[in-house]
Amino acid sequence: MADGRTPLLRELLGGDGRLIVVSNRGPITFDWDPDQPGRLMASRGSGGLVTALGELGRHAPVTWVAAAMTPADRTAAAALGGITRARLARARHGEADSRGGGEGAALTWSPTGGRTSTSVAERGTAVLEAAEPAVTPAVVGELVQGLMPNQDLDLVYVLVDEEAYDRHYWIVANPFLWFIQHEMYAPAYGPNVDDELMDAWRRGYRPVNEQLADAAVEAAGDDPNPVILLQDYHLYLAAQRIRDRRPDATILHFNHIPWPSAGQWQLIPQSMRRAICEGLLACDIVGLQTDRYADNFLDSVASFVRDARVDRDGRNVLWRGRRIRVRAYPISVDPDGLLAFSRSEAVEERVRRLSERVGRAGNPRLIVRADRIEPSKNALRGFLAFESLLARRPELRETTRFVAVQAPTRTEIPEYAQYAAAVREVVARINGMADPEDLPVWIYDGSDYAMAIAALRLADVVVVNPLIDGMNLVAKEAVLVGQNPVLVLSETAGAAEQLASDSLTVAPGDIVGTAAAIERGLDMPPAERRHHLRRLRASVREEDLDWWLTRQLRDLSAIRRGVLPPSRRLRDSLRRVETETV
Amino acid sequence: MADGRTPLLRELLGGDGRLIVVSNRGPITFDWDPDQPGRLMASRGSGGLVTALGELGRHAPVTWVAAAMTPADRTAAAALGGITRARLARARHGEADSRGGGEGAALTWSPTGGRTSTSVAERGTAVLEAAEPAVTPAVVGELVQGLMPNQDLDLVYVLVDEEAYDRHYWIVANPFLWFIQHEMYAPAYGPNVDDELMDAWRRGYRPVNEQLADAAVEAAGDDPNPVILLQDYHLYLAAQRIRDRRPDATILHFNHIPWPSAGQWQLIPQSMRRAICEGLLACDIVGLQTDRYADNFLDSVASFVRDARVDRDGRNVLWRGRRIRVRAYPISVDPDGLLAFSRSEAVEERVRRLSERVGRAGNPRLIVRADRIEPSKNALRGFLAFESLLARRPELRETTRFVAVQAPTRTEIPEYAQYAAAVREVVARINGMADPEDLPVWIYDGSDYAMAIAALRLADVVVVNPLIDGMNLVAKEAVLVGQNPVLVLSETAGAAEQLASDSLTVAPGDIVGTAAAIERGLDMPPAERRHHLRRLRASVREEDLDWWLTRQLRDLSAIRRGVLPPSRRLRDSLRRVETETV
Repeated sequence: MADGRTPLLRELLGGDGRLIVVSNRGPITFDWDPDQPGRLMASRGSGGLVTALGELGRHAPVTWVAAAMTPADRTAAAALGGITRARLARARHGEADSRGGGEGAALTWSPTGGRTSTSVAERGTAVLEAAEPAVTPAVVGELVQGLMPNQDLDLVYVLVDEEAYDRHYWIVANPFLWFIQHEMYAPAYGPNVDDELMDAWRRGYRPVNEQLADAAVEAAGDDPNPVILLQDYHLYLAAQRIRDRRPDATILHFNHIPWPSAGQWQLIPQSMRRAICEGLLACDIVGLQTDRYADNFLDSVASFVRDARVDRDGRNVLWRGRRIRVRAYPISVDPDGLLAFSRSEAVEERVRRLSERVGRAGNPRLIVRADRIEPSKNALRGFLAFESLLARRPELRETTRFVAVQAPTRTEIPEYAQYAAAVREVVARINGMADPEDLPVWIYDGSDYAMAIAALRLADVVVVNPLIDGMNLVAKEAVLVGQNPVLVLSETAGAAEQLASDSLTVAPGDIVGTAAAIERGLDMPPAERRHHLRRLRASVREEDLDWWLTRQLRDLSAIRRGVLPPSRRLRDSLRRVETETV
Repeated sequence: MADGRTPLLRELLGGDGRLIVVSNRGPITFDWDPDQPGRLMASRGSGGLVTALGELGRHAPVTWVAAAMTPADRTAAAALGGITRARLARARHGEADSRGGGEGAALTWSPTGGRTSTSVAERGTAVLEAAEPAVTPAVVGELVQGLMPNQDLDLVYVLVDEEAYDRHYWIVANPFLWFIQHEMYAPAYGPNVDDELMDAWRRGYRPVNEQLADAAVEAAGDDPNPVILLQDYHLYLAAQRIRDRRPDATILHFNHIPWPSAGQWQLIPQSMRRAICEGLLACDIVGLQTDRYADNFLDSVASFVRDARVDRDGRNVLWRGRRIRVRAYPISVDPDGLLAFSRSEAVEERVRRLSERVGRAGNPRLIVRADRIEPSKNALRGFLAFESLLARRPELRETTRFVAVQAPTRTEIPEYAQYAAAVREVVARINGMADPEDLPVWIYDGSDYAMAIAALRLADVVVVNPLIDGMNLVAKEAVLVGQNPVLVLSETAGAAEQLASDSLTVAPGDIVGTAAAIERGLDMPPAERRHHLRRLRASVREEDLDWWLTRQLRDLSAIRRGVLPPSRRLRDSLRRVETETV
C-alpha cells in the first residue's frame, strides 16, 4: 500500500503543495544534555502519532507544525525556522529540491559549522555536541536528518507564549480533557470547572490553538489548496481559525483518544463543549479511532450544536452551509518495522535475559502486560485478577509468572501518583509472601521498549484490560511479535472493534471475568491458539498503519474531487441491527 | 385526569382482576418501637414510588407485593398474608367487597381483638400498641388502614430468605447498581466485580427477584389476564420469571433511576448486563423517566442482546417473537396534595420560624437547596459555587443566605460518609469566618420534610444541581410551592427535559457556571421571574403524577387491545434534528 501513497499524495497536493501536519508535540524533542551544558540532544517521539506520521516525508513534501515544548525546543525553533524559511524561499523560486521525489527525498541544507558529532542510537536518540550559540540551522538540521532521514520535511516549532502554553497543556489538555475523554474523574469530586480552568481555557487553550493554526496558515503560504492534518485533543479550536483565514483549505482532524458519550461531556460547561464540537466542525473530515467514538461524536454534535443537522447513518453533519464527514480510522502499527525491531539485537538481548530467568524458574508460562501505570490502563484490576486466580488455583503459582513491563507516568498529577501507589501495593501483596528469588510478579522498566517487545515475544497470555483506550497498540504489537499468545482484551479498548472476535474479551470492571479469561488463555489448546493468532495477525496486517493513513488521504482526495461516497460503518463489531417497520 | 382513571382501570383489569404492583420496599414499613418492646409501629414511605402508587387502591383493586425488609415487616408479613388470603377467598366466592368501587373502597375486615390505639401523625406514622403475640391480621390491618385509608389494597410482604436478601439489597442493588446507574464510581477503583459480588448476584439478587415474581404470580391467581407493574432497579430479573410462568401477563417495568449509556454498562460483566437487559425485555413495556434514558436503554439492548432487533425511532424492540415497547414516563408530584401540605400547620410553623430568622438577618434573599447529602446530588459543587460567588461579589454576604435543608444518608456506605464529610468541610469553611449569630449558610435537618417545603416556599433561588438524577422531584415541588423562585437546574437531572427552557441550566461540573446562574437568578427582574414561574407551574401541573400513571395505564390498555400506536419522543428537550438525505 506504501507504493500507492506517493501518487495519492501527489494527486492530493497538486504539483506544488506541501502536506501540512499540525500537532502539539513535534516528532522530535530537543533537550539540553543535563551532564554537558550547552550540548543539544534530540530524540524522536515513540508514540503512535510520530510512528504514524513520521515517515510521511518519504512520500511527499511535508511541513510539520508543532509547539516548542522544552527550553531546548525553543532554542531549536529559531534554527528550524531558518531551515524552513530557506526551504520555502527555495521552493518559491523554483530551486531544485526533493519535492515530489518520493523515496530518497532529504533535507537539502549542508552543515556549515560547529563541531558536530551525530549518532543515532538504537532507541532513537541523536546527540549533537554544540555550544548554545552554535545552534545553527545546519546543526539542528543534522540532528533532524539523523532521526528522520530521507524525508522532505520542514519542521516548524512555534514559540508559543510560555504562560499560555502552561495553561494550555498542564491545565486544559492534561489532565482536564484527557480525564474527561478517558472518563477518569470520580464525578462527585471532579472535574471542578473553576475560575482557573476557565481562565486557562480562554488565555491558554484558545490562544495556543490560534498560534499553531496561524503557523499552519503561514506554512500554507500561497498554496492554492492547502491540505492540513490536525492531530488530537490539544487542537480542537485550530481548525476554526484555519477555516476563517483559509476557507479553501481541506482539513482533517484525527483524534487519537476516545470520544466519550454525550453524557460525559455534559459534566462540563455548555460553552466549552459547544466550542469543542463547533471547532471540529470547521474541518472537512473528523476522524476518530472507532465506530463507537464516531457515533458518540455525532451524538455530541446532535446534542450540543444547535444549528447542526446530523445524519447518523450517513455519518455526515450539515453545519452552516458546509458538509462535515465523520469517519473511523483505527490507527495501527507498521508490521514490517515492528518485526524488524523485534529481531534487533536490543530485543534479542532482552529475550535472552528473560529466557534465562524463565529457565531458572522452571519454565513457567508467562502472562504479560506492557503499559504505562496510569488509571485508564487498569493494571490494578489486572493484578487483582491474577491474585484471585492464584487463590483459586494455587498450582498456577508454580507454573505461571506475571511479567509486567511498566513504568509510572505523569506522577506530577496526584491521581496518577495515587494510582501507581495502589498498583505497587497489590503487587507487593502478591509478591510479599514469596521467596524473593522466585516472585510471582516480575516487574520490568516500562520505559524499556525493547524489553516490552521481548516480553510480548515470549508471552503465553497477554493482558490488555484498559478501562478505556483510544486504540491500544500493545494489543496489535502482541499478536504480531508473539510466538503464540492468547490475547485477553478489554472490550472498551479501541482495538476491540478489530480484534474482539479472536480474543478473550473482558469487561474492565470484571475481576472475576478477567481471572477466568487469563485462566482460559493459559489452558487454551495449541491448535485453538494458532487459529486465533493467525486471524488476529491477518487483521492487523491488513489494517495496518499504511491503511490508516492511506484511507485518510483517499478520503481527502475524494472530497477535493467532490466524489466522497456516503459513509458506512467500518465493521459491526457489536452486531448489525436491522430496523424494521413496526 | 383522576376521574378518568377508574374506568380506565376497570377496562384494563376486566371485571374481576386486581392490579398487581411489585416493588422491593412496600408502601408501609413496620418497626418495633425501640422504647416499648413489642409495640408495633408503621410508617408510610415518603419516596416518589409510594407517593405515586400509594393512592392507586382508591381507583381499583390493588395487590402490592414487596419484600419484608425489617424484622417487624417479617412479623407483620404473616398477618398481612392472613388479610390477603381472607380477601382473596372472599373475592373468589363472590362476597361483596369494595372491588371496582373506586373512591371509598376500604379494607373490609374488622378489628377483633387486642388493645389497639391507632393514630396517624402528621408525617405519616401510625402507632399501634400491641404485644408481639397480638400482631393479628386485624391489628396490622388497622395500621394499614390508618396510613392508606379508603383503599382496596392487599399488601403481600414476602418472607425472603434473609441472607439472600442482604446480598440482594446491600451488595447488588446498593451500592452496586445504584452506583453504576448514577455513574458514581471512580472507574479506576470501582466497581470491582469480585467473587463476593458474583455470588451475591447469583445467590441474592436472582433468588429474591424470583421470590417476588412468584408472589406476584400467586397473587394473580386465576385472573385470566393479570396486569403487573414492576418497580425499579431491584427487580430487573422479575419479569422474566413472571413471563415464564404466566405468558399471558401484561407487564410494565418502570425504572425510577437513570439508565446510563452503554459505555457505563460495559464496566460490568457481559453476562450480568445481558441478563439485566433480557430480564427487562420480558416486559411488554419498559418505562423510563426521560427520553435520554429510553434512548440509552435501546442502545444498551442493541449493544448487549444479540438476537434483539432494535427500532430506535419507533422505540420498539423485537425479541424472540415478542415486541417490547420502550417509553418515557416522567414521574411527578401530586400538585393539589402538595399545595395542601404546603399550607398545613406543620409547614406554616416552620415558615414562621424561618421568616423570623430571615427578619433578624435583615431580610436577605434566600438561595435554597433541599436534598439528601449523597454524591449524586452534588451539594459539594453547589456550596463551592456559592463560596466563589461570595468571593467575587462580597456584598452578597449581606444580602443573601444559603438555606440547605439536608441530611446525610446511607452513611454506612463509605463513599457516602466520605462525601458528607467533604460537604461539611466546605460549609464549615464558608461559615467559619462569620459571626456565629449570622452565618452565610443555614443548615436544617433534611429529614424534616415540612422544613424543606417551608424553605422552598420562601426561596428566591432554588439550586437543583445533581450530577445525575432519575427525575428530581424537588425541582417540581419548588415551582409549585415557591412564592417566586428562580430555578437553577442541572441539565443532567431528569426533570431538565421538562423544565430546562424556563430554568437557568447548569452543567453539574461547572462551578463557575453554577455561581453565575445563582447570581443571575438573584438579579433576575420580577417580571421575568414571574414569566418563567408561570410556565414552569403550567408544565408541572399538566404533566403531573396522574398524567404519569394514566399514560402507563393507557399504554397497557392499548397493548391489551392491540392498538398501541407507534412511539415518538415525548419532547425534544435538546433540539429536534431533521435527518436529510446526504
